[in-house]
Amino acid sequence: MTLDQKNPRSNYLTTIFWDNDSVKLIDQTKLPEKLEIITCLTYQELAHCIKRLAIRGAPAIGVAAAMGLALCAVKSKATSKSRILEELKSAYHTLLETRPTAVNLKWGLDTIFRELDKYETVEEIKKNVVASAIKLSQEDIAINKKLGKFGSDLIKDGDVVMTHCNAGALATVSYGTALGVIRSVKESGKKISVIATETRPVMQGSRLTAFELVHDEIDVSLIPDTAVGHLMANKMIDKVIVGADRILRTGHVYNKIGTYQVALLSKSHGIPFYVAAPLSTFDLKSSTEEITIEERSVEEVTKIGDKRVAPAGVRIFNPAFDVTPPDLVAGIITEKGIIYPPYEKNVQAIFDGI
Amino acid sequence: MTLDQKNPRSNYLTTIFWDNDSVKLIDQTKLPEKLEIITCLTYQELAHCIKRLAIRGAPAIGVAAAMGLALCAVKSKATSKSRILEELKSAYHTLLETRPTAVNLKWGLDTIFRELDKYETVEEIKKNVVASAIKLSQEDIAINKKLGKFGSDLIKDGDVVMTHCNAGALATVSYGTALGVIRSVKESGKKISVIATETRPVMQGSRLTAFELVHDEIDVSLIPDTAVGHLMANKMIDKVIVGADRILRTGHVYNKIGTYQVALLSKSHGIPFYVAAPLSTFDLKSSTEEITIEERSVEEVTKIGDKRVAPAGVRIFNPAFDVTPPDLVAGIITEKGIIYPPYEKNVQAIFDGI
Repeated sequence: MTLDQKNPRSNYLTTIFWDNDSVKLIDQTKLPEKLEIITCLTYQELAHCIKRLAIRGAPAIGVAAAMGLALCAVKSKATSKSRILEELKSAYHTLLETRPTAVNLKWGLDTIFRELDKYETVEEIKKNVVASAIKLSQEDIAINKKLGKFGSDLIKDGDVVMTHCNAGALATVSYGTALGVIRSVKESGKKISVIATETRPVMQGSRLTAFELVHDEIDVSLIPDTAVGHLMANKMIDKVIVGADRILRTGHVYNKIGTYQVALLSKSHGIPFYVAAPLSTFDLKSSTEEITIEERSVEEVTKIGDKRVAPAGVRIFNPAFDVTPPDLVAGIITEKGIIYPPYEKNVQAIFDGI
Repeated sequence: MTLDQKNPRSNYLTTIFWDNDSVKLIDQTKLPEKLEIITCLTYQELAHCIKRLAIRGAPAIGVAAAMGLALCAVKSKATSKSRILEELKSAYHTLLETRPTAVNLKWGLDTIFRELDKYETVEEIKKNVVASAIKLSQEDIAINKKLGKFGSDLIKDGDVVMTHCNAGALATVSYGTALGVIRSVKESGKKISVIATETRPVMQGSRLTAFELVHDEIDVSLIPDTAVGHLMANKMIDKVIVGADRILRTGHVYNKIGTYQVALLSKSHGIPFYVAAPLSTFDLKSSTEEITIEERSVEEVTKIGDKRVAPAGVRIFNPAFDVTPPDLVAGIITEKGIIYPPYEKNVQAIFDGI
């Protein structure tokens, strides 16, 4: 089975989908060398895939978490409502703990849990949890297409747009957020070129963004993270668009390590820096003081494949995310339109309007 | 033979030295896994080592180029002065073409050539070219120690100093420029911690800077290039010191790709950004328009060891250097003292004083 058969009207990669009581997903740790599909039969297998970054990207893991609950439900041998709810609660906690920073994970899980009270029987629960998870995955694509269209209006014919990390089809169910904007620009007939940063240490830019844009025949050049300032100084970048893992009501953006410095360099060079993210990425309750920045393993920095690139005994600092303050963000592109500063007021207005 | 036997009064690594009509050097492409010494018997072998980055760092390759001429001289079978001069000229051009951006290469070669007229016989030329090359290597260490002492005065007890790329013992004959300052601070009894950036794509920070500081038992932490802004925003860096490949009379600094953005991020966070370089790094004649930025191979970005990290068919932009404008540089640390802005005036004053 190829991926495209599951999504016949699209040439875009589909990152995750429900298939006969199992979840199928692209193993992103094998990219760019091999396009391999993993089949998860249990929520534990899926949780392990999220933890080891076989699937990553805030919107994608939100849907993955929901599908994890669906796997838990369909595989359950429970005969009472209370028993299956207990099992789902246990799955909820296992799935939630896989990645501490991503807010979409909790959003995906809560979306499923919010509906559970409505159902009476075990069979009803099983059927509806699966249906909700599938619906969430379809909505993700629809949201990205809306968001892409709004973002497309910001881009001029012939623009060179830089992106950091991967906020593409591979970070969502399909189509992407930041790369959804790029795809929408291309569909509108405007010419566009993309600069992708490698995004050390996990290299989602080289391995994923470059891969999916080459796959879609969109013009893309890859650069080391160290070349961003040089390209900006040489006027080789017109705009920057990145995704987000979490956005606060104040407009503070949590995203892949390196995003903050890209935003600051953009500001210094007069280049507009945009964030593209669905409303599910917003965390209206937390403040910057309350959020833990996930520290990832030392091996991500000391080894690449089997090759050791740093000496034994060196201390490593490997934060997975950083915070970009609102004054560096020109606009936040969502499925309900573009939010401009002042963010505190305009984020609230978007949510009040829903 | 261990390196330390060649330099018994020092625990520092010695990058290159003359040994019985041959040149011995540390193969930096094998670091950090193995500390291996290459023996070059001909200048062509040495030129190949420079080209493939087995030896790199502006001051080191200046000395290497001079030692290349010494190898050419001692191996020559010429029986006339004109014949050996012809051979040396041919070696001069081969060595000069190995790395287009580094000004020290030409400086090392010209220092040897300037003296050739003084000698009458083939034997005199052989003896004196070798003696000059050895003298140059000894002077390099002496210069670094002087420069280190001047730089040391800028650092407070307990400072955390970030560096980019490798301007260490491994970039010079020994002791280093930026890392020479670090060593001098430690010798003065002040406490110092170092943050080293990985420095993609060739990873001189992980492979070389981290390696030599661990070797010398100096406190060092390694970070991805993407984490620089995050650490600065979190007040984890007090000062930045880097080396240079070429400095213009205007104070424009050519150095490893990524230096410019580190300098700009330093400025934005109010962190002093210093350059440590011997006067041989200055190019008083050229302007920024005249200097070619070396583009290096695509494979540096697409592959790490044998592992492919980018998809086939993606375009790569891999500039080896960038330019940091003088307004981002707090001071330039040389063996004759620290040059402060305005650079045009104060660089000239230092050279007038020689």
